[in-house]
Amino acid sequence: MRCFKVTLEYDGTDYAGFQFQAGQRSVQAEVERAVRQLTGEEVRVSGAGRTDAGVHALGQVVGFRCETRIPTERMALALNSALPTDISAAGVSEVDERFHARFSALSRAYAYVILNRPLPSAVFRRYTMHCPPPLDVAAMQEAASHLPGTRDFRAWANSTAETNTTVRHVIRCRVRPVKSFVLVQVEANAFLRGMVRNVVGTLVEVGVGKRCPEDIPSITESRDRAQAGPSAPARGLCLVRVRY
Amino acid sequence: MRCFKVTLEYDGTDYAGFQFQAGQRSVQAEVERAVRQLTGEEVRVSGAGRTDAGVHALGQVVGFRCETRIPTERMALALNSALPTDISAAGVSEVDERFHARFSALSRAYAYVILNRPLPSAVFRRYTMHCPPPLDVAAMQEAASHLPGTRDFRAWANSTAETNTTVRHVIRCRVRPVKSFVLVQVEANAFLRGMVRNVVGTLVEVGVGKRCPEDIPSITESRDRAQAGPSAPARGLCLVRVRY
Repeated sequence: MRCFKVTLEYDGTDYAGFQFQAGQRSVQAEVERAVRQLTGEEVRVSGAGRTDAGVHALGQVVGFRCETRIPTERMALALNSALPTDISAAGVSEVDERFHARFSALSRAYAYVILNRPLPSAVFRRYTMHCPPPLDVAAMQEAASHLPGTRDFRAWANSTAETNTTVRHVIRCRVRPVKSFVLVQVEANAFLRGMVRNVVGTLVEVGVGKRCPEDIPSITESRDRAQAGPSAPARGLCLVRVRY
Repeated sequence: MRCFKVTLEYDGTDYAGFQFQAGQRSVQAEVERAVRQLTGEEVRVSGAGRTDAGVHALGQVVGFRCETRIPTERMALALNSALPTDISAAGVSEVDERFHARFSALSRAYAYVILNRPLPSAVFRRYTMHCPPPLDVAAMQEAASHLPGTRDFRAWANSTAETNTTVRHVIRCRVRPVKSFVLVQVEANAFLRGMVRNVVGTLVEVGVGKRCPEDIPSITESRDRAQAGPSAPARGLCLVRVRY
């Protein structure tokens, strides 16, 4: 049996999320269907990050096992011929059988893009959250500086059902302005459900002056989801890189 | 009667083009419908550039006359409330009655984005042409340098039916690499039908070594469309700015 590691891009707009859901379009089901179409084999695809409905990826990583004789260097082209246009394979390698896309991953990095100008954008709408009032980026940066570290991030999770521990190691959380956009980049060993969007929603509240940067440590310490801000919309979020 | 000048963004993917076409979605018809919905007035909207089906805009300019009492500073928000999400007003001003979006324009600037890497991109597919073989950007730059000037560009036009003259003044034509992308920026007083896409299709042929940069002046001199390369796909093209 061969083991494949595939780096995937997708436009999550028209998906119910990465993970299989009966009766809905999921990235996982599309990749499994593409592999079946190419090889005739039924495979189970696992992903490094279970992105929510509407969330995008430039560097999701998936793995599957398969007996196909398709050469590794042709696998990405083959997959792209079978995948819908809103999912693409950006790279394929053959890996050791101990590789697991989810459990072998050391960290995940997400980017969140906020369009910060009075009027919305038709061109960027699929990949950005629109925030009309001017954001105080310096305050957001100070707020973000309170997140890195190994902490119990329960206050930032929508659900803790599928996890043993709510302790995570946030490696970095950066906020920077790029023309009319504000970019939030966050990397952690792993994330709790909804964590990035809840962090961004709260940073935006800091940016518009509804909260101060010092609220961040007290939210984390509260371990209470109700203390954090609202979830930022899915469309601004993108899984950009997974490290192994 | 008040005259409005509106800067528009749109994602052209789901449009048959800027200009009204019976039974099809057009940007012009959507803007006219939005103004009618807001003001009850039937207006005729004119645009600076008649972008083709699938072509985008970050800075299209349209004009219309209307008796509405909506204050100018609220007009963009009002339009955005009535426009579909793939069209947005990025700015509105009130102008002199002699203003005409098309005839008053001094120049139009377009950008064309080529994704130059072996594998396609799900995220950038709506706004880029995918070119897998590596492009020789220096050769494309040399080719592009032969375009600026006041010349008869008939060889670069798909149709000359709606124009008195095929002489145009190309102000600049630049090619530059940006990460995995190659960006072509071209500005002219006005363009002939299909001109930018025919130029880009030909520059790509230079980039992959099918033609040499010195072919450009002879194509222009031939005044024969058959001498130029194929049209590049609409999705990579964007009308970025109109000067008045």
